[in-house]
Amino acid sequence: MKNYEIAFQGEHYAFSEIAAKKFLGESAICHPRETFEQVFQSVKEKIPLLGIIPIENTLSGSIHQNYDLLLENNIRIIGEVNLRIELHLIAQLGVNLSDIRSVYSHPAAIGQCRNFWKKNPELKIFPTYDTAGSVKIIAEKGLTDAAAIASQQAAKDYNMNVLLSEIEDYPENYTRFLIISTEAINFGSANKTSIVFATKHIPGALFKSLSVFFLRDLNLLKIESRPLRGKPWQYIFYLDFEGSMEQEACQNALRHLEEIAEFIKVLGSYPAAK
Amino acid sequence: MKNYEIAFQGEHYAFSEIAAKKFLGESAICHPRETFEQVFQSVKEKIPLLGIIPIENTLSGSIHQNYDLLLENNIRIIGEVNLRIELHLIAQLGVNLSDIRSVYSHPAAIGQCRNFWKKNPELKIFPTYDTAGSVKIIAEKGLTDAAAIASQQAAKDYNMNVLLSEIEDYPENYTRFLIISTEAINFGSANKTSIVFATKHIPGALFKSLSVFFLRDLNLLKIESRPLRGKPWQYIFYLDFEGSMEQEACQNALRHLEEIAEFIKVLGSYPAAK
Repeated sequence: MKNYEIAFQGEHYAFSEIAAKKFLGESAICHPRETFEQVFQSVKEKIPLLGIIPIENTLSGSIHQNYDLLLENNIRIIGEVNLRIELHLIAQLGVNLSDIRSVYSHPAAIGQCRNFWKKNPELKIFPTYDTAGSVKIIAEKGLTDAAAIASQQAAKDYNMNVLLSEIEDYPENYTRFLIISTEAINFGSANKTSIVFATKHIPGALFKSLSVFFLRDLNLLKIESRPLRGKPWQYIFYLDFEGSMEQEACQNALRHLEEIAEFIKVLGSYPAAK
Repeated sequence: MKNYEIAFQGEHYAFSEIAAKKFLGESAICHPRETFEQVFQSVKEKIPLLGIIPIENTLSGSIHQNYDLLLENNIRIIGEVNLRIELHLIAQLGVNLSDIRSVYSHPAAIGQCRNFWKKNPELKIFPTYDTAGSVKIIAEKGLTDAAAIASQQAAKDYNMNVLLSEIEDYPENYTRFLIISTEAINFGSANKTSIVFATKHIPGALFKSLSVFFLRDLNLLKIESRPLRGKPWQYIFYLDFEGSMEQEACQNALRHLEEIAEFIKVLGSYPAAK
């Protein structure tokens, strides 16, 4: 396998990096970026050629900022990968569970551990930019009354201790990541397509929009709505459906959707994650 | 008008409190709570009888935590109110714009000022639990290199200075709030209904679900999807539609929806905000 280079948000051993290596292989060269905007910017400048972004988690839901960035930036989705997210409570060596007063982690990870918060209401929660970055903060500041929620790999890399394993609410905790690029790099046979559209202001607009897929036996996999900025109480819709834009049924569905939609943007056809 | 008592999340002069007074009148007695969970808990214990929660903003989108809490808690929606959100950059008296190094505010307010962040990339952003609470932090800590983003009322109350007015991305910045209770208190003629449901695992399930409204000329106002916790890549849907559960067409639609849905919960019929 080619040594692909890919940008991700967070520090090394963030779940995005682990997902990138699952998709591209261990030899992939992963470039950390501070923000999702910077991942998109890197990909647009082709340094590196690929980027990876989390798009939804099965417990905490969609990462709406990345939905917005997919609309705003001229890139395409070329692949996706699902990663099981195991969250661990991590502290410095020698620190015990009873020493912990505050916990640092990314808001998404915090949202996946609600049962843990309910059982430990005295803990002060500090949202941060990254799970692995939270481990880094505790290591660098030498905090002995704080823990981070992050991956096992991050604990190992910073020579820290796992106090509690798998504190996520359900073991069915997966994050879906998208691989983005400005180039049409082929990672296999495309069988899934993502689009974004806004409907015209007509009665039953959403129902009519979904009918273009139903009438052609194209299965919908996900719908997400976001506000149309500047037009209160109007929405744009992100749709994932089975099929590729190479197929006539999909082309016909989108031509039909053009009759109902104010605008349509195809974000990409790509091989669905296994 | 009766002196209603209502719980809201945040500190006094938070937008939730301003919205509560817009809905109930200036004589309403507003009880601050630290978290949304505590607002729901108060309402369930009927101390006070009413609660107010933000549910969506026209720039930053839905407040998903409150969608989840509407499903988990046994309460009903009895009203709604829309509030124009004007966001101001607020600092202590004598502090100039050029002194500011960091900005405190609620994540939703932060997300409504993206153009401001793009123009001021050197500012460090600190997410907090509340807009008015951010003003309080700066006042109490006596910070002279930090500002908060909050309402004009909060600035006045803490004797602080507005450095920049209306820094939100668009003037069309509204938040929709829901009034919740365990009691069926009547604030006017109901013409809007909110429900939540999960579909059976059948082809075209979402399309068929929306058909029950389309076939009865019931307009959909909003759809929101959230992950079904414990069942990866399955979703629950929140729908707002025109009409009241007192009307036969709405009752018929929901009876029809029962054929397609795994479960349905009616969150309430209430008078739509003007």
